[in-house]
Amino acid sequence: MSEIDDDGLGRGAPEEPQADIYDEEGSIRHDFLTMVGAAIADRDVIFLRQNVAKLHESELGHLIEAIQPDQRLAMIRLLGADFDMTALTEVDEAIRMQIVDQMPNAQIAAAIGDLDSDDAVYILEDLEDEDREEILAQLPFTERVRLRRALDYPESSAGRRMQTEFVAVPPFWTVGQTIDYMRDEEDLPETFTQIFVIDPTFKLLGVVNLDRILRTKRQVKIETIMHETNHPIPAKMDQEEAAQLFEQYDLLSAAVVDENERLVGVLTIDDVVDVIQEEAEEDLLRLGGVGDEELSDSIAETSRSRVPWLAVNLLTAFLAASVISLFEATIQEIVALAVLMPIVAGMGGNAGSQTMTVTVRALATRNLDIHNAYRVVRREAGVGLLNGVVFGIMIGVIAGLWFQDVNIGGIIATAMLINMMAAAIAGILIPLALDRFGADPAVASSVFVTTVTDIIGFFAFLGLATWWFM
Amino acid sequence: MSEIDDDGLGRGAPEEPQADIYDEEGSIRHDFLTMVGAAIADRDVIFLRQNVAKLHESELGHLIEAIQPDQRLAMIRLLGADFDMTALTEVDEAIRMQIVDQMPNAQIAAAIGDLDSDDAVYILEDLEDEDREEILAQLPFTERVRLRRALDYPESSAGRRMQTEFVAVPPFWTVGQTIDYMRDEEDLPETFTQIFVIDPTFKLLGVVNLDRILRTKRQVKIETIMHETNHPIPAKMDQEEAAQLFEQYDLLSAAVVDENERLVGVLTIDDVVDVIQEEAEEDLLRLGGVGDEELSDSIAETSRSRVPWLAVNLLTAFLAASVISLFEATIQEIVALAVLMPIVAGMGGNAGSQTMTVTVRALATRNLDIHNAYRVVRREAGVGLLNGVVFGIMIGVIAGLWFQDVNIGGIIATAMLINMMAAAIAGILIPLALDRFGADPAVASSVFVTTVTDIIGFFAFLGLATWWFM
Repeated sequence: MSEIDDDGLGRGAPEEPQADIYDEEGSIRHDFLTMVGAAIADRDVIFLRQNVAKLHESELGHLIEAIQPDQRLAMIRLLGADFDMTALTEVDEAIRMQIVDQMPNAQIAAAIGDLDSDDAVYILEDLEDEDREEILAQLPFTERVRLRRALDYPESSAGRRMQTEFVAVPPFWTVGQTIDYMRDEEDLPETFTQIFVIDPTFKLLGVVNLDRILRTKRQVKIETIMHETNHPIPAKMDQEEAAQLFEQYDLLSAAVVDENERLVGVLTIDDVVDVIQEEAEEDLLRLGGVGDEELSDSIAETSRSRVPWLAVNLLTAFLAASVISLFEATIQEIVALAVLMPIVAGMGGNAGSQTMTVTVRALATRNLDIHNAYRVVRREAGVGLLNGVVFGIMIGVIAGLWFQDVNIGGIIATAMLINMMAAAIAGILIPLALDRFGADPAVASSVFVTTVTDIIGFFAFLGLATWWFM
Repeated sequence: MSEIDDDGLGRGAPEEPQADIYDEEGSIRHDFLTMVGAAIADRDVIFLRQNVAKLHESELGHLIEAIQPDQRLAMIRLLGADFDMTALTEVDEAIRMQIVDQMPNAQIAAAIGDLDSDDAVYILEDLEDEDREEILAQLPFTERVRLRRALDYPESSAGRRMQTEFVAVPPFWTVGQTIDYMRDEEDLPETFTQIFVIDPTFKLLGVVNLDRILRTKRQVKIETIMHETNHPIPAKMDQEEAAQLFEQYDLLSAAVVDENERLVGVLTIDDVVDVIQEEAEEDLLRLGGVGDEELSDSIAETSRSRVPWLAVNLLTAFLAASVISLFEATIQEIVALAVLMPIVAGMGGNAGSQTMTVTVRALATRNLDIHNAYRVVRREAGVGLLNGVVFGIMIGVIAGLWFQDVNIGGIIATAMLINMMAAAIAGILIPLALDRFGADPAVASSVFVTTVTDIIGFFAFLGLATWWFM
């Protein structure tokens, strides 16, 4: 119906409904993959242009990930100038690096010129310094200056994620002048939801949402409808902190300013959504003892990245084993203790993980701070006591019946209660302390917590048994 | 500078910079809390109106959570009509319920009339049926019909989260007519980024972004600039699925349609960001063995919600213990086995968690599907083998030296290798299988995985030792 293809809500939405290439599970349809594979093998450029080139960038990214590794570069070569480089921002880092490494720098430079600056930076920041400089040198002057400025900001800062294309007008313009300007100007961002008001030195004066402009009569001056505070984001602010501002104030976009409060770019919610996802994912992976690995990493890379966590846990495992070895004589006398001791340690570990997970999450979302820390610690201790009594009795009864010994039942029940309390307290105080000392609680908490629950679990159970029986 | 206070980027941004009430840690400043507390005690309505009433809804929400429970209702009463009910959508469910339970239904009805429909639904959906009906009955007819329609959609559906206020125009209008309509119409949504194009029966024909309207000459017809496919979201679609569409296609808002493709509302990115956060949080909490608990839950509630997970783990702990009890005779002979056996089981558990965490996350983000499942399973098996060899040798050497027995070293090394392989395979196949059978892999995987690593760890180590020594 329309010739215009850049008024999609994202950046160039597809003309066809998205359901096409996906099956019901959300995977790319098998027959589509087969057809694409055949087209690549047959060098069928027409099929690829008609069916692949017009995919949305994220669909194209999925497709690149789904086809065979050796087909990827072939497909990109066949598509030539029709290949939307933005798709590379949607694939795993390892795959992106493989592709970019094999593409000639001249081709990358040509493709990058068409991208929004934030997407261009996303691709450029992972390259070797040498390649990056070569590509930048081939770009037009203004483009190069813009990208270099963004690349100069620290990694994971708002300045790295911002888009340097924006609409800015002086405060004395009227709504009518502003609309006329937007009608005539060719070089506008692909899509935007607000315009910025600046002085001649680019100092940010305010913002106006587009709906406000559309509701206002032509003769009204921009300065009378602009809004002064739009949480301008310092370019050096960490992206996670910027994301929290977006979340808290339901922002769609926000001005990024330099040290002199001059407007240098705009951060948009679509990039922030990616940051929110990454941060949540990071916490989950770190709690599980894995770092920044991706599914496309090799066996050697994955193995290496998981070794440190396992090595630290090995140390603590030997620590726990040395506690057991203190009680070898008791175990030799009463083997039932060896059978039951992993239950005490393991249940403590599980209870500790529960508390720790809640604490790490609450710290990440800033729901836990000095105002409620005491209340929450008290609550966790209470939960530990209550569940310690419940499970102490349960385990005591079962163990007592199993080994036909009321003493063993009493000892394991007491040890269980002690360890559940220890688990609750360690589960909340360890992440709180790590956070206070500036460490990431998601990375280290679980090692410390299980060390505590293992050592206290074995010590309480075997120690009580030794004191009682020996 | 401006009298208009609803052109904020969110819904009514504050006039003052947000930094005011927070300290550097992101907690509410202590002196501000003290002043608010004193004002509540002194019934100082003027202070509260000047300093609390004009806070952003999320800041007001934080404040409500930070003050003493008995001050909350007092403050809301003192604020009276100046209290922004939207703040209640920003606080923990338990706190919201306490407040709403104590407010007269008439007051809730009056306050709810001013809210956007999505916020009103958010508060109404948690109420008792009786209270909800009483409040709905006090609302104007159109308002009541709108809210009831949203409430009729299933929980966690797009229909529940949508806003029923939107701007819709016929396709034959010109850009000029559309702008004039927006300038004259009083009853527009507080903020919006796109307008919808509908036929007389409200059937959705297309969407136009506001920036497209602003770039287009007045005489151009809307139908020539509208975009046909904007991923209309069926009202019954699960909110998580809708959120995935927003993420994939970088949407800012999307039309929500009923079974007949008639426009019933609009879903906006600020609500979707909350959904994304919730879903990521859910996975993390489930992997940690906790459900939908909140920091404000009581000890009894928390304890109760954590019991099921601990009870299941208790079962599996006894299962593992019964494996140990098969080898009581061997342990009595060689107590070193009791000392070392938790290392084998524990390291397997850690390696299994690593694989499982990666798998659960990849399934949630749909990065793992039939196209790469085989490749990823093979990779994990490889990683298990490699790390099994590395850690098998390490542990074997240490244990051999510790107990001065090369046999024990060889046995634990072999058991370790076996258990690391088992951990890798269980860590990926169990979540994959749960996902395939429609269960949530985040909930159940970790119990199954540690059961496998405990049982295989104890069985391999004690079994090998029995076979070798006895």
